[in-house]
Amino acid sequence: MRNIKLTLEYEGTRYAGWQIQPGGIETVQGVLNRTLSVFLGEDIKVAGASRTDAGVHAFGQVAAFKSATTIPCQGLQRKLNVLLPPDIVVNGIEEVSLDFDPRCHAKSKTYLYRILNSPTPSALHRHFAWHLHYPLDLESMARGGRSFIGKMDFTSFMARESDATHGVREVTSVEIGKVGDFIEIEVKGTAFLRHMVRIMVGTLVALGRGKFAPAHITEIIVARDRSQAAMTAPPRGLFLKEIIF
Amino acid sequence: MRNIKLTLEYEGTRYAGWQIQPGGIETVQGVLNRTLSVFLGEDIKVAGASRTDAGVHAFGQVAAFKSATTIPCQGLQRKLNVLLPPDIVVNGIEEVSLDFDPRCHAKSKTYLYRILNSPTPSALHRHFAWHLHYPLDLESMARGGRSFIGKMDFTSFMARESDATHGVREVTSVEIGKVGDFIEIEVKGTAFLRHMVRIMVGTLVALGRGKFAPAHITEIIVARDRSQAAMTAPPRGLFLKEIIF
Repeated sequence: MRNIKLTLEYEGTRYAGWQIQPGGIETVQGVLNRTLSVFLGEDIKVAGASRTDAGVHAFGQVAAFKSATTIPCQGLQRKLNVLLPPDIVVNGIEEVSLDFDPRCHAKSKTYLYRILNSPTPSALHRHFAWHLHYPLDLESMARGGRSFIGKMDFTSFMARESDATHGVREVTSVEIGKVGDFIEIEVKGTAFLRHMVRIMVGTLVALGRGKFAPAHITEIIVARDRSQAAMTAPPRGLFLKEIIF
Repeated sequence: MRNIKLTLEYEGTRYAGWQIQPGGIETVQGVLNRTLSVFLGEDIKVAGASRTDAGVHAFGQVAAFKSATTIPCQGLQRKLNVLLPPDIVVNGIEEVSLDFDPRCHAKSKTYLYRILNSPTPSALHRHFAWHLHYPLDLESMARGGRSFIGKMDFTSFMARESDATHGVREVTSVEIGKVGDFIEIEVKGTAFLRHMVRIMVGTLVALGRGKFAPAHITEIIVARDRSQAAMTAPPRGLFLKEIIF
């Protein structure tokens, strides 16, 4: 038996997220399981490092599966990139030890959120950014963003329907920059709650619009109450960028 | 009567190009004519500066239409961006003199072609770049690209099914650069033949692969024979960037 690690890029637009769903709803994990099972003639179950939501993209998702196949990794990658739909691509492949578990062994995850801050929406970027036409105060957002850094209870930034047993997570960096008309927010942490990055971004946007002062972010965190944070930013602007093991 | 000029961004993926086609085939011009006619209650015919091919994108297409409407331009733009499908966006709008004709008055057009030069294809950029996995000699492509600059007969770089009466066009600049894994080729000229930029790119790629020396580009031009140039690059990498009047 071999354990094979995949690095994946996908466009989340037409998928109900990473995690397999009952009833024929298309998910990235479901497509991978089906494609690998049919190709290898085994019952393949792919385990992912991160359960991205519906519409969220990735260029650094990591997954692994166990198989008895003797096909070399390079050949397997080439074949998968032919068999998979073009919105899922295997960017990297390697054989890892049998005990490697992408979910448990992930030490750090980096997410990128892209906001298109321009007067009109974009036809070309409509699936890959959150379009906001009003001005945002980047300096203030960057100051507020620093309040997220640390090991804290992020319950205020957790989806109400989350099944997490507690809200303590560690954010190690929040970087906000401007590239042309795009505001890019990069968040790195050891692990994240459901919708955490998107609620952080929604709250930073409320701050950037002047709804409250940067120091208020800490008050929202301390409250441990989802209703204190702002809206969940839409999934289309979010990219799972990198996972470090 | 007013003449209204639109600057348009669109994703060409699901359209049979700019130009209206018979038989219900979806085109950008067809969608604009229909949307404007229904909204304004007039028979609107939009004239475009450039007939982009099926699958080609634009972020600087210019079109104009005549209408008796009294709606101010800003309101018209906002309404159009609500009514149009999200893969077509009006980025700019202004009233121009009644004799303005986007096709005839265009002084210069700029096209951008994007090649993704990486070992694996991209899920996120699959509709917006030509993926090539083999190495390309950029220095040699840049040298060859300079041979295109000038007023010459570009018959070798014209689609066989073109209805142009002659092949003389003027190319004013060809710039080739690298941005991450992307090779960007920007071509500017007064006017272009059908498929001209795509055949130029296909030929520059053949050069970059070492199929011939940079100096051979001039020989291909002089031959005035489509079969001397290389393949037509696929439409998905091409963007109509800017039109100057």
